[in-house]
Amino acid sequence: MSTALTVEEAWAGLPATAQRLLVAGLETFGENGYHGTSTRAIAQRAGMSPAALYMHFPTKEDLLFEIARTGHEVHFARVRAAADAAGPDPSARVAAIVEASVLFHAEHHSLARTIQYEHPSLAPDHQRALLKIRRDTESFLADAVTEGVASGAFAPDDAPTAALALMSLAIDVARWYPSQRRRSPTQIATSYTHLALRLLRP
Amino acid sequence: MSTALTVEEAWAGLPATAQRLLVAGLETFGENGYHGTSTRAIAQRAGMSPAALYMHFPTKEDLLFEIARTGHEVHFARVRAAADAAGPDPSARVAAIVEASVLFHAEHHSLARTIQYEHPSLAPDHQRALLKIRRDTESFLADAVTEGVASGAFAPDDAPTAALALMSLAIDVARWYPSQRRRSPTQIATSYTHLALRLLRP
Repeated sequence: MSTALTVEEAWAGLPATAQRLLVAGLETFGENGYHGTSTRAIAQRAGMSPAALYMHFPTKEDLLFEIARTGHEVHFARVRAAADAAGPDPSARVAAIVEASVLFHAEHHSLARTIQYEHPSLAPDHQRALLKIRRDTESFLADAVTEGVASGAFAPDDAPTAALALMSLAIDVARWYPSQRRRSPTQIATSYTHLALRLLRP
Repeated sequence: MSTALTVEEAWAGLPATAQRLLVAGLETFGENGYHGTSTRAIAQRAGMSPAALYMHFPTKEDLLFEIARTGHEVHFARVRAAADAAGPDPSARVAAIVEASVLFHAEHHSLARTIQYEHPSLAPDHQRALLKIRRDTESFLADAVTEGVASGAFAPDDAPTAALALMSLAIDVARWYPSQRRRSPTQIATSYTHLALRLLRP
């Protein structure tokens, strides 16, 4: 399980040309969508030929998958690191997980949108690999909620549904952030952490 | 303000050829994304020539905007109708609004995804027109939350943020629905309505 906390860190071991292509893909997919981006445009932005791109990524879909996989893993790694740092108290753990997820989706809204919206463009086995990371992340949050139910700190009707809703809330930040009317990622994370604990309390 | 509760109803007054093009656009954008769909493919699905398409919609962007505008208006009309049917009690009104919004986003997830994900592909004035409907819808929910604060039924830290979060929760259903692990639209709506009232209670 990857522990890299940024995509740059996750890609640091790759050849410099592959790193440039991934960053170029991330930017162009974010600007024009996956279907609106040609491999030629990605190669051009990376300052390379289309042939050089194919050496690292046989298809445009492979490049999208590598970006999406890394994004999912970095998000999950941040969530785990935040929960570890919060210690054993279930309220502190849930608050830390929601905060880390909201911050990720606000700060990396372009990456997060590409990951979520282009999911149907991926091959079925690639979709399954990503869904596994999503389920693991959601289960990690659901476990923290269940610990809070056991300790008496929380009393949701149904812990998995509450976990789904809290993750959903964090993910949807990427859709509307940035907004003229809303505040900094930190302020949104603070508000949403309060809402999460209000929703879970007995 | 449109009161149509389905896109078909909203389009019923248009020429039959325009209706066929809108339905064809809705389907092909849902399957291949806006950038992955040519006007030729839309015309073909509607059983028409590209020239016939341009008579009704000068650009592909005009067709997307008409679909997105109608989707936003139908969603808002359903939310208002549900609140009206619920009567004056703020808890009943908020529950009805959340239920109507969740049901819309589950049942019409393909339309809802197109509306949300392709928003950046629209011209700036078209984006502004849609943002106005979104703000009006969110304000309508925020007003119901504020009424509940006044009556003592609710006590969120901040009514507009709670309304944003509840709308966000409903909209995000379109991203993950249908899911192998999750239930019918009605069951999701019931769960999320409970969560909404839990979040708002004093």
